[in-house]
Amino acid sequence: MKEIKLFCPATIANLSCGFDVLGLCLDNAGDEMIIRKVDQKGIRITKIVGADLPLETEKNVSGVAAIAMLEAYESHFEPITFGFEIEIYKHIKAGSGIGSSAASSAGAVFGINELLGKPYSRKDLVQFAMQGEKLASGNAHADNVAPALLGGFTLVRSYSPLDIIRIDSPEELFATVVHPQIELKTSDARSVLKQNVSLKSAIMQWGNVGGLIAGLYTKDYDLIGRSLHDEIVEPLRSVLIPGFDLIKQTALENGALGSGISGSGPSIFALSRGKNTADQIAKAMSEVYENMNLPYEIHVSKINPNGVRII
Amino acid sequence: MKEIKLFCPATIANLSCGFDVLGLCLDNAGDEMIIRKVDQKGIRITKIVGADLPLETEKNVSGVAAIAMLEAYESHFEPITFGFEIEIYKHIKAGSGIGSSAASSAGAVFGINELLGKPYSRKDLVQFAMQGEKLASGNAHADNVAPALLGGFTLVRSYSPLDIIRIDSPEELFATVVHPQIELKTSDARSVLKQNVSLKSAIMQWGNVGGLIAGLYTKDYDLIGRSLHDEIVEPLRSVLIPGFDLIKQTALENGALGSGISGSGPSIFALSRGKNTADQIAKAMSEVYENMNLPYEIHVSKINPNGVRII
Repeated sequence: MKEIKLFCPATIANLSCGFDVLGLCLDNAGDEMIIRKVDQKGIRITKIVGADLPLETEKNVSGVAAIAMLEAYESHFEPITFGFEIEIYKHIKAGSGIGSSAASSAGAVFGINELLGKPYSRKDLVQFAMQGEKLASGNAHADNVAPALLGGFTLVRSYSPLDIIRIDSPEELFATVVHPQIELKTSDARSVLKQNVSLKSAIMQWGNVGGLIAGLYTKDYDLIGRSLHDEIVEPLRSVLIPGFDLIKQTALENGALGSGISGSGPSIFALSRGKNTADQIAKAMSEVYENMNLPYEIHVSKINPNGVRII
Repeated sequence: MKEIKLFCPATIANLSCGFDVLGLCLDNAGDEMIIRKVDQKGIRITKIVGADLPLETEKNVSGVAAIAMLEAYESHFEPITFGFEIEIYKHIKAGSGIGSSAASSAGAVFGINELLGKPYSRKDLVQFAMQGEKLASGNAHADNVAPALLGGFTLVRSYSPLDIIRIDSPEELFATVVHPQIELKTSDARSVLKQNVSLKSAIMQWGNVGGLIAGLYTKDYDLIGRSLHDEIVEPLRSVLIPGFDLIKQTALENGALGSGISGSGPSIFALSRGKNTADQIAKAMSEVYENMNLPYEIHVSKINPNGVRII
């Protein structure tokens, strides 16, 4: 195999209560990538379609993730006498809050791993993809790259050592994600956070994280919904997102189990049971932004059980 | 049925990462109670053996819990023309940190519910038993009464509304609990807590809560062990418990999955896989306190799957 074409899924991180630890993988929102094994050593980004992103390997998240992986490969296994070319077809907008950089980082390391004969497991690949996230946001976080690589829901229990738990999604669970076309920098979304939180709020938050995990294992949709609350981050960040309260209220009134900020925003997600409800929520969310004359994109997706895949 | 004899189990609350939300039920440490249906209306505590506790109904946790339950029963169902006597045979020492008051509160409401023909589910009974906890500590917490009534592990996802999730314990999981015979008032254990915690610590804590819940559902003993960390409360409270660091280190060196403060202390628990390891940990913990000339009690118990039971 010399060339591989991939679907690199969008992801929703945080999921209300699970700030910095939880994420899920979407199924029909994502980028495409082609990874090609070539004689010339090194990593080259040869084409980017759909986004104005740097072609220089060291400035591109997929390039940085790929370099991290090849350096580890050469130090643990053997020197590599060949190289890789990467083509990226972006459909996820940068800054949307649904894991645009994570999709590219995850795709690069997944594709090269396939072309190397799978020396690494999908879970092993997370640490390399995280280096792309570090380039993108200054922080080597895993809450988007883990679900992009593993599918389903992922919990980053710990970073030191890295400990990621993958959890199957209940089959009828669907996500609706609306992306209002405003710019919200991750740095601004980070700057509104407070370094300290009340113990009382923190207790509510970890009660809800426990409830959400329990709901996923027991396929208890109502428990999942009851647990989708965020005591800590949403009150601070939601004011940066136009129409947030109305979008969330609309989602809940239309049958959503829960709703909140996707990643650091500005996208807003809702989870629901069954595609019909998810479609109905999408329609109702769309009307809100149409009434506000705010351009938006909207996705309805089941939870992707596999993560990045060969197409 | 006119009279019922009960085993009222001890419980371990908090479980390291799960401060105020998690608890588990022990199997061979607990009190006994006899609840008797009598013609005379009201609740009377007629005998307490093994502890110097008030016989006055309104000053006794089991009396207060029973009254809360009967008031609810009369308002939802029908007036009660008879009454109940309660005998308590205490084996769990007050202030030990393994749910002494919870065992009495849970036993009272469970026994009366049986004699009334089970109008309430075990989960329904939690709200009444919590009133006993309110008398004991000023705070109607559920993290001991929930496992005492439901068995296994329990998660208090929310208090408002009350939302309790019961989780089966992996079958090979055992607890070792050592109780150093010092007095540690719950109020003192509360007073060392800080009202605010760092967001960074809180994130680690809810990552671990998620990991522990995932470990319970998947019966992943190692994951359970990796998740038994407490970033927030243990560093503040452990200094109040003589020999804590050495006891914990000894437990881990002898094969414990994890170890921490039981409830608000001074008892220290360790979880392990299999009875042999739990016994070995008990032996090693005992040696630590013997070398310190500190009197102690020690329990080795599998996780009780049923909670309070008729004997």
